[in-house]
Amino acid sequence: MLTLYTFHNSICTQKVFITLAEKGMECEEETVNLFAAEQYSPAYLKINPKGVVPTLVHEGRTIPESSLICEYIDETWPDSGPGGKLIPYGPFLKSRMRLFSKLVDETIFESTRELSFSAMFREKMKKMPEEQRRKRFANVGDPSKRARLISTYEQGIESPYVFQAIGNWEKAFSAIDASIAEFGGPWLLGTRFTLADINMIPYLWRIEYLDLIDIWLDDHDAAAAWWERAKTRPSAVSCIPDRLNEDDINAMKEHGGKLRDATLKKRKEYLGLKPK
Amino acid sequence: MLTLYTFHNSICTQKVFITLAEKGMECEEETVNLFAAEQYSPAYLKINPKGVVPTLVHEGRTIPESSLICEYIDETWPDSGPGGKLIPYGPFLKSRMRLFSKLVDETIFESTRELSFSAMFREKMKKMPEEQRRKRFANVGDPSKRARLISTYEQGIESPYVFQAIGNWEKAFSAIDASIAEFGGPWLLGTRFTLADINMIPYLWRIEYLDLIDIWLDDHDAAAAWWERAKTRPSAVSCIPDRLNEDDINAMKEHGGKLRDATLKKRKEYLGLKPK
Repeated sequence: MLTLYTFHNSICTQKVFITLAEKGMECEEETVNLFAAEQYSPAYLKINPKGVVPTLVHEGRTIPESSLICEYIDETWPDSGPGGKLIPYGPFLKSRMRLFSKLVDETIFESTRELSFSAMFREKMKKMPEEQRRKRFANVGDPSKRARLISTYEQGIESPYVFQAIGNWEKAFSAIDASIAEFGGPWLLGTRFTLADINMIPYLWRIEYLDLIDIWLDDHDAAAAWWERAKTRPSAVSCIPDRLNEDDINAMKEHGGKLRDATLKKRKEYLGLKPK
Repeated sequence: MLTLYTFHNSICTQKVFITLAEKGMECEEETVNLFAAEQYSPAYLKINPKGVVPTLVHEGRTIPESSLICEYIDETWPDSGPGGKLIPYGPFLKSRMRLFSKLVDETIFESTRELSFSAMFREKMKKMPEEQRRKRFANVGDPSKRARLISTYEQGIESPYVFQAIGNWEKAFSAIDASIAEFGGPWLLGTRFTLADINMIPYLWRIEYLDLIDIWLDDHDAAAAWWERAKTRPSAVSCIPDRLNEDDINAMKEHGGKLRDATLKKRKEYLGLKPK
């Protein structure tokens, strides 16, 4: 029995769902309502001391961190599903797969949140009473996250953190191009669809929903061709668009669209600064 | 033939050296002089686009990221060395081993740098002419790293980033205690010495050199007993103290020692804020 603690808007959890779909497996879902701060309840902190979703529970053991959960599922049931193993064969390809995990966990997760925040939640926060907003900032215990939140709230697209997010996405698209060139495609690590692809798909889908993705795809041909394949992969379709409702999708498109011109301009600025 | 690009003061590289020592293996070392910014030379950026050390080159293939290099070495030569495999057996222990990699890569690396900077480099920067210092800040391209550097320079131990670093170390010691309790010791994941131990050792050694480690060890018995074993492990001794010179060690102790009282106080403050 597999139990997955999750919340409907968690991008990280989408990786786990795609992995399970590829393996032809199912799990029980337990909702942790992030909007009601349930991730900080004493009961959940016992399961996940960092207070984040998702967490997998299997045979009484807890496995946190979406990238590690995907590896755990593949290693525990290597032969499940029509495609077999999602972790690639051989030490070199494994290290390249984990480099994509690190790219997501260390930069793209945060960069996607930065763009989402600028597009969506900043508008909501502007409407809060001053008092409530100040409390919200003070509640962020991690000083680097607090500095980031305040800067992005105050400066929006002009925040240096948003600039960094745009730069990180540029690097990610270049990494996709480079990987396709190195291994010959059609997937990130060659002929087999792997966890490297699964790691990236939900994040690209989010910036597609925010109506920003073609800012990068127009200049990254290999990534654009890979994305056409990835977004029609049945496992991804069943776990991302099929699980969202029309209203959520429209709201992302509407708010993200307002940032398009400014994002285009900032990306040009970033490219101008990049060493040749 | 293995070639490792590195620099003598790189803590991350110490993990790779310990891994090689456990395997009874050697490599050629190529120095990338970080003090002369050689990591940003066009030649090195081709090998490592992020401009960081270490990078491993094996049979013409480049493997960046110390935690991935250690896994690569163990997976490529699983049976080398008297102890055999350093990656643990089974999906669950593997996920726990990688959780320690993430702990280091996502918090402890930065937290250790934060304490080292407060103790050592801040004093050097204070003596720089204003102009040179401002240039130094402006050169940090990543806005979150720039905000962190300026805050720690200006506020020292009073910077919220240093407070976060002290909190992160507290969590790391608790994670060590919990892992020893879960798997029964003597090593982090049980009876076998693994990459989980190797990941942590160089960072604990750095805060030992800074004369700060007992601030935490006094309250973490399991971690203290583990550390006594870890710091006498021959591979670790040969790769860390045996490679440092007396002057460097004395400088760390002297400068770190000046932060002891303030660090103790800040840790108490952190513990007081922690939810029970």
